[in-house]
Amino acid sequence: MTKTLRLFDLAGAELDRRFSPYCWRIRLALAHKNLPVETIPWRFTEKEEISPSGQALVPVLVDGDQWIADSWTIANYLEDKYPNAPSLFGGPAGRSLSRHYSDIADGLVRAMFPFVVLDVLQHVAEKDRDYFRASREKRANAKLETVVSDRDKRLPDFRASLAALRFTLKSQPFLGGDQPLYADYAVFGPFQWARCVSPYALLEKDDPVRHWRDRLLDCFDGLGRQTPAYDA
Amino acid sequence: MTKTLRLFDLAGAELDRRFSPYCWRIRLALAHKNLPVETIPWRFTEKEEISPSGQALVPVLVDGDQWIADSWTIANYLEDKYPNAPSLFGGPAGRSLSRHYSDIADGLVRAMFPFVVLDVLQHVAEKDRDYFRASREKRANAKLETVVSDRDKRLPDFRASLAALRFTLKSQPFLGGDQPLYADYAVFGPFQWARCVSPYALLEKDDPVRHWRDRLLDCFDGLGRQTPAYDA
Repeated sequence: MTKTLRLFDLAGAELDRRFSPYCWRIRLALAHKNLPVETIPWRFTEKEEISPSGQALVPVLVDGDQWIADSWTIANYLEDKYPNAPSLFGGPAGRSLSRHYSDIADGLVRAMFPFVVLDVLQHVAEKDRDYFRASREKRANAKLETVVSDRDKRLPDFRASLAALRFTLKSQPFLGGDQPLYADYAVFGPFQWARCVSPYALLEKDDPVRHWRDRLLDCFDGLGRQTPAYDA
Repeated sequence: MTKTLRLFDLAGAELDRRFSPYCWRIRLALAHKNLPVETIPWRFTEKEEISPSGQALVPVLVDGDQWIADSWTIANYLEDKYPNAPSLFGGPAGRSLSRHYSDIADGLVRAMFPFVVLDVLQHVAEKDRDYFRASREKRANAKLETVVSDRDKRLPDFRASLAALRFTLKSQPFLGGDQPLYADYAVFGPFQWARCVSPYALLEKDDPVRHWRDRLLDCFDGLGRQTPAYDA
C-alpha cells in the first residue's frame, strides 16, 4: 500500500520528538488499521500549513484532497472510510462507548498539565517557545514555573485519581479487552506525551497503569518507542 | 413470562426505599433485557439470607438453583444466559469497554460517600443502624458527622471531577449512544443512590449529567422513580 495518507504531527526542537497526546491517538489508530502514513513534523506556530483544515490544531490528517482535524473526528473518519481494516471500536455500541474514553483522555491531559508543562517548554522548537509560554500561562493564569512548583505535593492526589483506570487494568490487559482498541490509544496519549517530554515519574514503577502503557509501547513493532522519551 | 428471577435488593427503614447503587445497576439491566424479577427487600445485617451466594453483599441474583453475586458478574451472567434479549454491551468489544464504566461507577460511590453517608444512616433500617455506622466509620476512620462536615467546601471539586462525564453527555444522550447500555446503568447507580437517601444537591439543576440521570429515570416506564427519593 502506498502512503497516500499524511498526518501533521507535533514535533519538538528535535524533529523526531513527537509528543502530542492527541497525535499519538491517531498514530496508533492508523497502525491499528494497517494504514501507512507519512508524518509531517509540525510546530505550534506553523498555523498556515494546516489552514486548509479550517482550524489551527493538530492532528490534521490529509487523505487525498480531504483535510480532517480533531482526533475523535479523524478516528471516526478512518473507521468509516476503511471499514475492512481492523475496527477501532468493535461495532456501533463500541463506537458510542469509546467516546467517553476520548473525553477521559482529554481530562488526563488537563490533569497532567501542571506536572509536565515546564518540561514541555524545554522541548518545544525555539521558534515555538514564546508562543507556548504565553498561551499556556494565559490558560493557567500563572507563570509556568509557579504551575509546576508544588507538583510533588500534588502527586499523591494525581495517582489516586487513576484508581478506576488502575482497577480495570488489573482485570484485563487493555481497556478494549485482550487486544487494544481506540479507547486504549486515546487514554495512552497523555501518558505518552508525559514520557516524551518529562523525566518526572507520574506513575510508580509497579503501577498496573504503567504496565498497560508499556504494553501499548510494545504494540505495532514498538511504534510508541520510536521517538525520544524518558524512562519515566 | 413468569418471574423466575429473584433479586436481593437493599432496602431502607421503608421497605420500598431501595437505595443500593449496585442493585440499581442490575434492576435496570434486568429491565433492559425484559426480564421480570421479584425483588426481595434485604437489610445489611441479613447476611444469612444470602449466604448461598458465598459472600455477604447485594445484589444477589437467584435464577433457579443458581446464586450469583457481584453486579459485574451478574451483568455478564444475564448477557450470556439470555443472549436473545437486548444486549447490555453491544458485542464483545462493547463488553470489554463496559468494564471500565463499572469501575468508574465504583469510584463515584467512593467520591459521593463523604457527601451522603450521614443521610444514608437516616434511612437504613433500625436494626442496621449500629452495623452501618460502625462499619462505615471504620472504613473512613472517622465519625460520620466529621466525614460530611465540610461537604459544602468539597462540592466544587466533586462537580469538577465530573467534567469528562459531563462533556460526553453533552455530545450524546447516553454513554451507550442514542440508547442506554449497561455502562449507563452502572454509572447511574451512584447518582440514584444519592437521590434516594439525600436531599443534598450534588448536581446543579442545569448539569448535563443531571439531565442524563433524569433520562435514565424515565426509562422502563420510570422504573428508577418507583422508590422514595429526594428532588436533589
